[in-house]
Amino acid sequence: MSLKRHLPLLQWLPQYRKEQAASDLVAAVIVTVMLIPQSLAYALLAGLPAQVGLYASILPLVLYAVFGTSRTLSVGPVAVVALMTAAALAPIAAPGSPEYLAGAVLLAVMSGLMLTAMGLMKLGFLANFLSHPVISGFITASGMVIAASQLKHLLGVEASGHNLLEIGESLADNLGQTHGPTLMMGAGTLLFLIFARTRLKSILVRLGAGIRAADIATKTAPILAVLVTTLLAWGLGLGAHGISLVGEVPSGLPQLTLPPMDVAVWKQLAVGALLISVVGFVESVSVGQTLAAKRRQRLDPDQELIGLGAANLGAGLSGGMPVTGGFSRSVVNFDAGAQTPAAGAYTAVGIALATLVLTPAIAYLPTTTLAATIIVAVATLIDFPALRRTWRYSRPDFGAMLATIVLTLLHSVEAGIVAGVGLSIGLFLYRTSRPHSALVGRVPGTEHFRNIQRHQVETSPQVSFLRVDESLYFANARFLEETVMDLVTRQPQLKDLVLVCPAVNLIDASALESLETINERMTDAGVRLHLSEVKGPVMDRLKNTQLISRLGGQVFLSTFEAWRTLVTPAEMPVTSAR
Amino acid sequence: MSLKRHLPLLQWLPQYRKEQAASDLVAAVIVTVMLIPQSLAYALLAGLPAQVGLYASILPLVLYAVFGTSRTLSVGPVAVVALMTAAALAPIAAPGSPEYLAGAVLLAVMSGLMLTAMGLMKLGFLANFLSHPVISGFITASGMVIAASQLKHLLGVEASGHNLLEIGESLADNLGQTHGPTLMMGAGTLLFLIFARTRLKSILVRLGAGIRAADIATKTAPILAVLVTTLLAWGLGLGAHGISLVGEVPSGLPQLTLPPMDVAVWKQLAVGALLISVVGFVESVSVGQTLAAKRRQRLDPDQELIGLGAANLGAGLSGGMPVTGGFSRSVVNFDAGAQTPAAGAYTAVGIALATLVLTPAIAYLPTTTLAATIIVAVATLIDFPALRRTWRYSRPDFGAMLATIVLTLLHSVEAGIVAGVGLSIGLFLYRTSRPHSALVGRVPGTEHFRNIQRHQVETSPQVSFLRVDESLYFANARFLEETVMDLVTRQPQLKDLVLVCPAVNLIDASALESLETINERMTDAGVRLHLSEVKGPVMDRLKNTQLISRLGGQVFLSTFEAWRTLVTPAEMPVTSAR
Repeated sequence: MSLKRHLPLLQWLPQYRKEQAASDLVAAVIVTVMLIPQSLAYALLAGLPAQVGLYASILPLVLYAVFGTSRTLSVGPVAVVALMTAAALAPIAAPGSPEYLAGAVLLAVMSGLMLTAMGLMKLGFLANFLSHPVISGFITASGMVIAASQLKHLLGVEASGHNLLEIGESLADNLGQTHGPTLMMGAGTLLFLIFARTRLKSILVRLGAGIRAADIATKTAPILAVLVTTLLAWGLGLGAHGISLVGEVPSGLPQLTLPPMDVAVWKQLAVGALLISVVGFVESVSVGQTLAAKRRQRLDPDQELIGLGAANLGAGLSGGMPVTGGFSRSVVNFDAGAQTPAAGAYTAVGIALATLVLTPAIAYLPTTTLAATIIVAVATLIDFPALRRTWRYSRPDFGAMLATIVLTLLHSVEAGIVAGVGLSIGLFLYRTSRPHSALVGRVPGTEHFRNIQRHQVETSPQVSFLRVDESLYFANARFLEETVMDLVTRQPQLKDLVLVCPAVNLIDASALESLETINERMTDAGVRLHLSEVKGPVMDRLKNTQLISRLGGQVFLSTFEAWRTLVTPAEMPVTSAR
Repeated sequence: MSLKRHLPLLQWLPQYRKEQAASDLVAAVIVTVMLIPQSLAYALLAGLPAQVGLYASILPLVLYAVFGTSRTLSVGPVAVVALMTAAALAPIAAPGSPEYLAGAVLLAVMSGLMLTAMGLMKLGFLANFLSHPVISGFITASGMVIAASQLKHLLGVEASGHNLLEIGESLADNLGQTHGPTLMMGAGTLLFLIFARTRLKSILVRLGAGIRAADIATKTAPILAVLVTTLLAWGLGLGAHGISLVGEVPSGLPQLTLPPMDVAVWKQLAVGALLISVVGFVESVSVGQTLAAKRRQRLDPDQELIGLGAANLGAGLSGGMPVTGGFSRSVVNFDAGAQTPAAGAYTAVGIALATLVLTPAIAYLPTTTLAATIIVAVATLIDFPALRRTWRYSRPDFGAMLATIVLTLLHSVEAGIVAGVGLSIGLFLYRTSRPHSALVGRVPGTEHFRNIQRHQVETSPQVSFLRVDESLYFANARFLEETVMDLVTRQPQLKDLVLVCPAVNLIDASALESLETINERMTDAGVRLHLSEVKGPVMDRLKNTQLISRLGGQVFLSTFEAWRTLVTPAEMPVTSAR
């Protein structure tokens, strides 16, 4: 069982059938065609040599096929992780230097170790700290930063920077050097890709193609752009005319290498590797789960961590960059009919062949073409309507989202994500630190107790019933103290206070002490504290505490029982209006 | 109203009566006698010249009397804040240097500004982030570090360090230089103070003194020790025999001064000032509230922030160190009969007189005496039984407490408190990220639905009812997705799933998206999602969302209504056992 759990391969390989293999092969061919330009482009985006993207698309895919639980996820370089890789490496080395390349490899290895460790320790829940608005804001802002960072390739100028301010300033300084031929080729590619994305499918369908075929043909537009511009660059010798080309790429499969073992560098990259791991995992799992659900399959998130960890370890040890499950490729893989993770392994074979055969051609690929494919790809990440939706639904969530976006755009991806996580946790704690509470009274003639502000109920001037609608824990312990003591101070005739607890799922040590303090203070003030409707598990824990042994009043099973015991008929319950 | 709120002075001064003034004066005399040695000792503890403690006990008390809301709180230097002051200043300057003194003054000013700003912005809830186990562990560990740090004065050796490891190592190195006469005087003082604290009261009572008089006489033991040892040092010229004395103290009242305006120093001290502010506030408010409750008075926490902020600003601007409300002095003030904050102002006059008159005598005060008074004072802070109590009640709370203690003892006060806060928040989020949920079925013949694992209930193979016992928010959104999709994957005949929501007080944007995703996935899988018993305010927000407009199923007011609609009699409900 445990072996099957940690080697999901064993779940499908023994029953692997010919028809499945055929479907997987078709999907693999389509995904390979899509992945070649993507892997080159995302290596460029990360500031790495083109072959690093290819290397990250071979061994990782094979390892994910062995250890991953999604049947259709397409693992490899993705845009956001490439951006985060560049951001993490920026402080330690200059792009193009051997230290920079070694850092990328190390990031992949560290991310692989972290993901695997999280999976073995079942720490997948850590990803929950990234709330949806934070992730959505982060992806939108990352998309904008990525698009901005590619403008320099489109214009053929030098520029640098890791946020909109830096990139903008850098571009503005160098705008004068814009290289006409580069811009023409880049803009042309961009227009073609936009046309392919927005119009091509409906035109193909009108011309008689099937919808799925048209869809897949549309997705291969980037490789067409790559082919045509590469041929142009080769045929016309555009490199000599100042158009920047990818340049010579080492031919052959990647060599297995070990990452640098410099402790100082490991420390410097730790935060970056952690963020890459968590963001990559969250993205990957949500794509994987969406696709799995369509076929009533399921993902094991802790095993997914191990699968992605293995993939990243593989990437690092074979000279690649950090990888994760990509959204668009996985959807194409699914739509193209992939049945098992074997499709990923076949894709790896495709990329390996490309690495062996195509590298001489890749040397002629213009970088401006890759920049155009990146810009079109990340445009789909930018989701402004999500901002409006979140604003309408919840102001606190919007606040966390906006902070993430603003900091990612204007400072750095790390700052954006850390601020977003911090703010969403803070806002949640703030919300639960002021829980809803209500004084309740008896609905005449019944055993029901309702809010005296909203209902016609019986109350007693000497006995109050306070209902708290939240678990009691440290963030609202003081609030409880204040609420209760306010009540006692404002009602000088008060003799008994009943805390009505049906909505209290937890009383932590802070809240317990607060209740003990409340009990002592009320005893000092001559008021008895009672509890009613305490849930079973909560009461089990309270049993042996000072709170119960020193309680001024009693613990009642029901609020009505407390009413019958404490409110004597002679007291003449008063009906409160409002 | 607002003026009265922000100037609590206006609430009591207009009705100030002679009898109150008499009570306040008596209390002020007793507190002054107690405060003189304490203010000197805590200045020593913070590594500051003795007069800084006195300065911090004049203007701050007057300002707190104007702006504070507690009637009996005694503001001034306290042990834990003095330790935190020393820890915050350690990285920026050497004790005794002018930069160190300027840093202490700046810490008080920054803390004053932070507290006042928090009060004006009603940010008192930030103190809630310090859970009781963390505060308790922090105080216990601080007490131990403080006691250890004073051993050098008792032994008459040089030593330094801000945690047990550093102090221990430093003491061990210098133990050979122990100064006999100093140790004799220190140990004698220590034994006397321990005797006074543990036995004196009962002896005095047996000799016929009233309990309260005996109690107060006991509290004045430290000043007696100070008097006797100072006279000895002066009379026998002990300074010349190598016993370390406080030395010359500038006579006269403090001068108003401005703190250094060096931005770099402000940045370096920011975290320390924040921690001092928050810890000081939490300690002060809990003492203040305990005392106020005994007389059915109340504290306004946000105005307390302003009161303590003003006190710290006053401390900083008059050359003092950070202050807060002290536990033992406040209790003495209360017991001695203080009626209004005027008692604090009278105490300030007492300390001012001492500063004018007693400084020549203070020069002869042995530091070993002050060390002994500190050790005895902080011994009461150490609360080991709280560790056992917390262990018994709640393992997660114990974990946070232990982390705080270990890091405070072995690393630093900052690390201890930050780790404790981080861990308690993390553990709370973890607990709520895996909420209790249960499949429920109908109790035969009723409209009640209970857990199918615990009760004999009717269920249907095609309709499941899932109850979630927690608000839905980002930390459990993914858990919800997994729970629901597991359910759907495991029950191939399932046609309808009803989410039963009476315990859901909040659905944040993440949970909303998760529900939308769940709904889409279930629609893909041919299962309809329904909701039942959604609370009013939660439903108000959901109304205009995609979740409701695209919901595969319906929203039912009650679970029984859902049962009646979805479970047709022909389906033959099955009674499940266990």
